[in-house]
Amino acid sequence: MRNIKLVIAYDGTVYHGFQYQANALSIQQVLEERLSRIFSHPLKVAGAGRTDRGVHAYGQVISFQTTGSIPVEKILVAARGVLPKDIVVCSAEEMPEAFHARYSAKSKMYLYRLQYCPVPDPFTRNYSWQVKAPLNAAAMHEAVQLIIGTHDFSSFRSAGSTPTNPVRTIFEASCTHESACYTFHFWGNGFLYHMVRNLVGTLARVGLGELSVNDFLAILAARDRRAAGVMAPAQGLYLHKVLYN
Amino acid sequence: MRNIKLVIAYDGTVYHGFQYQANALSIQQVLEERLSRIFSHPLKVAGAGRTDRGVHAYGQVISFQTTGSIPVEKILVAARGVLPKDIVVCSAEEMPEAFHARYSAKSKMYLYRLQYCPVPDPFTRNYSWQVKAPLNAAAMHEAVQLIIGTHDFSSFRSAGSTPTNPVRTIFEASCTHESACYTFHFWGNGFLYHMVRNLVGTLARVGLGELSVNDFLAILAARDRRAAGVMAPAQGLYLHKVLYN
Repeated sequence: MRNIKLVIAYDGTVYHGFQYQANALSIQQVLEERLSRIFSHPLKVAGAGRTDRGVHAYGQVISFQTTGSIPVEKILVAARGVLPKDIVVCSAEEMPEAFHARYSAKSKMYLYRLQYCPVPDPFTRNYSWQVKAPLNAAAMHEAVQLIIGTHDFSSFRSAGSTPTNPVRTIFEASCTHESACYTFHFWGNGFLYHMVRNLVGTLARVGLGELSVNDFLAILAARDRRAAGVMAPAQGLYLHKVLYN
Repeated sequence: MRNIKLVIAYDGTVYHGFQYQANALSIQQVLEERLSRIFSHPLKVAGAGRTDRGVHAYGQVISFQTTGSIPVEKILVAARGVLPKDIVVCSAEEMPEAFHARYSAKSKMYLYRLQYCPVPDPFTRNYSWQVKAPLNAAAMHEAVQLIIGTHDFSSFRSAGSTPTNPVRTIFEASCTHESACYTFHFWGNGFLYHMVRNLVGTLARVGLGELSVNDFLAILAARDRRAAGVMAPAQGLYLHKVLYN
């Protein structure tokens, strides 16, 4: 039995998230159905991160076991022949038996894109959060750096999520901008469900001048979901990279 | 009777071009059907340029006559309420009776985007021409500047197009690049059907090193469609701006 790791990029616009669902099309379902043609048997893939509906990936990682004989260096081109154009295999690797895309992951990087556009931009509507007022990138950068380190992120967890340990360690967090486009980068050992979108929803209020950097610090310290702002929309979020040992 | 000019941006991905067609959805049909709700009577719009299926616009211009009473400054927001998200009204202006989006146009700007990506990029597949080899931007820039001035563009006209005067004047032409993205800019008094895509198809061969700058000059001078290369695909082309007096 071989164990295969694939790095996948996808435009999540038309999919109902990564994870398999009974009545809606998921990335996982498409991957399992289409890749099984290359490996000549039904496949069950594991994904490193469960991206939500409309969320994108530059570097999602999946792993699966196969008895198929296709050489690993031929998978990229073969996958291109069976997958739709909005899901692309970027690299393929043969892994030791113990490797698992999700359980072996040590840290993840996410990226979130905002765009200031007074008039809606038809080209980025599915790829960024369009805001009507200009944002203060320096203030957002100052605020987001406060999450670096080990913190209880209860203020930014999903409202209805099941109780898990809300402590996560963030290695890097930044906000950069180039003309009207603002990009948040997050690198951490793990993220609570909806945590990045909840963080960006509140950070955008800092960028708009509705909250100060100190207000943001107080919201983080409150460890209470009700203290934070609204969740940022799905289409600005990208699973950037998954890191292993 | 009022005469209204609108500047329109659209993502042409799902449309069968600008111009009305009996059995396929066009930008024109959507504009006429949806805008008629704001102006309270059936509309007939004229577009400055007939973009093809999959071609985009940052600054298409339309004009139409109306008896509707909506103030010009309220059109932008009202249009946002009736148009799909891939068609956006950028500006609205009340014009003299003689103004016509197409017949009054003095010059047009087009833009064409190419992207070098060894692995297909799922995010730009509908918005640029993805090429698998790196391109020589300096050579493409040198070649494209040879079209500046007044020339017979028969080598770059559409293969099956009806005979019209093939002479056009190009004011500006350039190729710029930023990392893996290459952008051609064209500004001219008019363009033959498929002229920009035919030019870019041949210019890409210069960028790939298959043709020299001198070869490009010889193809332009040949005034023969058979001398040029294949047509570049629709999704990289954008109607950038339409200029009037």
